[in-house]
Amino acid sequence: MRRVVCPGSFDPVHKGHLEIIMRAASLFDEVVVAVSTNPAKKYRFSQEERIEMISEAVSNFSGISVQAMGSGLLADYCKRIGADAIVKGLRGAPDYEFEAPMAAMNRHLTGVETVFLHGDGRYQHVSSSLIKEVAALGGDVSEFLPMGVLSRL
Amino acid sequence: MRRVVCPGSFDPVHKGHLEIIMRAASLFDEVVVAVSTNPAKKYRFSQEERIEMISEAVSNFSGISVQAMGSGLLADYCKRIGADAIVKGLRGAPDYEFEAPMAAMNRHLTGVETVFLHGDGRYQHVSSSLIKEVAALGGDVSEFLPMGVLSRL
Amino acid sequence: MRRVVCPGSFDPVHKGHLEIIMRAASLFDEVVVAVSTNPAKKYRFSQEERIEMISEAVSNFSGISVQAMGSGLLADYCKRIGADAIVKGLRGAPDYEFEAPMAAMNRHLTGVETVFLHGDGRYQHVSSSLIKEVAALGGDVSEFLPMGVLSRL
Amino acid sequence: MRRVVCPGSFDPVHKGHLEIIMRAASLFDEVVVAVSTNPAKKYRFSQEERIEMISEAVSNFSGISVQAMGSGLLADYCKRIGADAIVKGLRGAPDYEFEAPMAAMNRHLTGVETVFLHGDGRYQHVSSSLIKEVAALGGDVSEFLPMGVLSRL
Amino acid sequence: MRRVVCPGSFDPVHKGHLEIIMRAASLFDEVVVAVSTNPAKKYRFSQEERIEMISEAVSNFSGISVQAMGSGLLADYCKRIGADAIVKGLRGAPDYEFEAPMAAMNRHLTGVETVFLHGDGRYQHVSSSLIKEVAALGGDVSEFLPMGVLSRL
Amino acid sequence: MRRVVCPGSFDPVHKGHLEIIMRAASLFDEVVVAVSTNPAKKYRFSQEERIEMISEAVSNFSGISVQAMGSGLLADYCKRIGADAIVKGLRGAPDYEFEAPMAAMNRHLTGVETVFLHGDGRYQHVSSSLIKEVAALGGDVSEFLPMGVLSRL
Repeated sequence: MRRVVCPGSFDPVHKGHLEIIMRAASLFDEVVVAVSTNPAKKYRFSQEERIEMISEAVSNFSGISVQAMGSGLLADYCKRIGADAIVKGLRGAPDYEFEAPMAAMNRHLTGVETVFLHGDGRYQHVSSSLIKEVAALGGDVSEFLPMGVLSRL
Repeated sequence: MRRVVCPGSFDPVHKGHLEIIMRAASLFDEVVVAVSTNPAKKYRFSQEERIEMISEAVSNFSGISVQAMGSGLLADYCKRIGADAIVKGLRGAPDYEFEAPMAAMNRHLTGVETVFLHGDGRYQHVSSSLIKEVAALGGDVSEFLPMGVLSRL
Repeated sequence: MRRVVCPGSFDPVHKGHLEIIMRAASLFDEVVVAVSTNPAKKYRFSQEERIEMISEAVSNFSGISVQAMGSGLLADYCKRIGADAIVKGLRGAPDYEFEAPMAAMNRHLTGVETVFLHGDGRYQHVSSSLIKEVAALGGDVSEFLPMGVLSRL
Repeated sequence: MRRVVCPGSFDPVHKGHLEIIMRAASLFDEVVVAVSTNPAKKYRFSQEERIEMISEAVSNFSGISVQAMGSGLLADYCKRIGADAIVKGLRGAPDYEFEAPMAAMNRHLTGVETVFLHGDGRYQHVSSSLIKEVAALGGDVSEFLPMGVLSRL
Repeated sequence: MRRVVCPGSFDPVHKGHLEIIMRAASLFDEVVVAVSTNPAKKYRFSQEERIEMISEAVSNFSGISVQAMGSGLLADYCKRIGADAIVKGLRGAPDYEFEAPMAAMNRHLTGVETVFLHGDGRYQHVSSSLIKEVAALGGDVSEFLPMGVLSRL
Repeated sequence: MRRVVCPGSFDPVHKGHLEIIMRAASLFDEVVVAVSTNPAKKYRFSQEERIEMISEAVSNFSGISVQAMGSGLLADYCKRIGADAIVKGLRGAPDYEFEAPMAAMNRHLTGVETVFLHGDGRYQHVSSSLIKEVAALGGDVSEFLPMGVLSRL
């Protein structure tokens, strides 16, 4: 039984995230989507809403659960819940260059692995921050969002 | 039961390869190291020698087998042996940029996933071609090679 | 008749910007330099000053006009003024990696194209923020600025 | 009247190429697809076939013509046929880093501009060489090719 | 006699920094570690503490001194203290891409050179900010820090 | 006394090379330009011609000598002639990513350092291979070459 973690702030979750979560679920037995909240940052949606939107989007799939990550190190969280690996999607080299030092540090801290998946080209330009920015200015981003997010945005 | 493939020409296998193979073996139930031979390319070691050197290096570990990949597409090979994913180590962004189109193409062809692991910093500058080049000119590359390769080089 | 937009905050305009604006003007019939102002950001120069400095620098060239972009999406702005494309200069791969998702999003939103030009090597290290930082500490950046900016800085 | 050149060996043309050619045709009045043949390289298709396959694929569109580029510098060719710019698609940063020195050199040689378009994410992993490699091993690449190429491959 | 500067905020100094400082000291006669303090930024350690921690870590080595850089341009500081070059460690391409424009600007301003060293792979994922973040959440980063920093953190 | 090596095939030397050699000469006491010849590669100019062209170009400068590197490892060559470091120019991130593994390997082999200088933006697109290619097709590359090379090309 392999359990992996898909961590993120998911503010809000978009189809690029969901693509990676689904692919993780096809590779590992259990996927825990871990929603992080940094007290020093501002969020568009509350932690509850962010968890709810992901839960709705993955409700038809088995093997995927959604949790608040709580405070503390991601590496410790993975150990606590018995996860072997973190799964991260990459849209391009800048994502990899940002994630690689954290992957190395997490492996150093508790031995937890980080597994990278190359995201689908259709979502290569999609990020929560760009979606929020465009939506705030009236742009149509419905193509990139699950229904539950669209209705809340 | 999850089976994954670590493909490569392994001419010869080095510790950077072995690090990734071991980490793959800790994440998945079975690792098949698939040794490819491109008829259009010249190799320093025969396919038999390359398989032998890997087999010796992984002989103390369970769940790892070594095979000739044969001709044909890697994506077809994975399907044939019932592998869910290809595992690739990344030393840096150029590796990722080289591998990403092939990962996308393989997923397109048969749905096989590619899982990337960020290689350990100690082996970041190690490649089979650099090792062969340095060894041919008399440089000491023993630190990067398993014993069976050293004695053959 | 092709109209294109060169968008930016231009705080202040420098010779790297002007090089791209001139090259855009040689490729397309009309170039609109669109000066954006994000209410959440601090600027060294007011929008009026920024427009004025660009207008002075391009006053001897035909086919180039300068406007405030106003609030709203760049993609909508382009549609409103009948522009076919956005023109952006690239100093290197990081610029491209930053701009590519926005180009893809803008094309998704209204079909507006983004055309990239590779900036001249002489201005590869020049950015408004570096210029302001150096000038504030007494460094001589006159080589990178049109006269009207120099006198105001 | 603006004429631009889309250069390449197109061995064979694929949908990633065609996407860029179409987008070039929407931005400029005339697009000349210039098929180059380097005597030192081997091609899968003859120059005639390569021109034919592109011609078929663009036959329903106006403003696009296909020519052999002949020997000589691309910058000289552009001058000879009165083209203002070269149009190149970019799939990612490595493409940009490969093309940028040539763009700078071409501008130095005859003043011809190079205009870069960011390719659609759907074709990000598609190249003629990968297509040929996969097709030769029996993989299905029909999704990435116009009909005339498929029947010939 | 060649004097070089290793500039940084060193908040706090870590073994990745020290590796570069030592290598600089083996290449040049005198290394001045210049501790910068930007009044607009928050630091975990005071300037005095940061200087002290570096001084302790390099106390057994000759040819290395530690100073506050004071306000003003780094290029001017180098001139003032008679330094020929700035020495910077690079962990990867993003570091280089961040540093290159500043190196070009500094050379433009006073002719001071910037010399880049490729950092050791063991410290490739180590940065002061990641260390502080991990340490604040209870992670063990002792492997990356000199003793004097560990006891203060 | 610090001696450094500027290695390369210099087929032919161009102003981008010379810029780095001059800057190396301003940073270190002695610069040895080491001309390498790989028996497996074809050169446009013989080793003698390549050495001659560099010698002419640097004849007015003291502290710079030109030698054939001979066969064998660069790291061994540096040790043999008592050089502390290799100096390499970087035109961009791809150069750095290509050179970094060799720098790490050379340091591993004999402890020899590699010092990177960021090349001037004016020569960012200049390489010996591009120069040869353009010159062979009749393009004017005189701006990038010292006189002695021009007359021979």
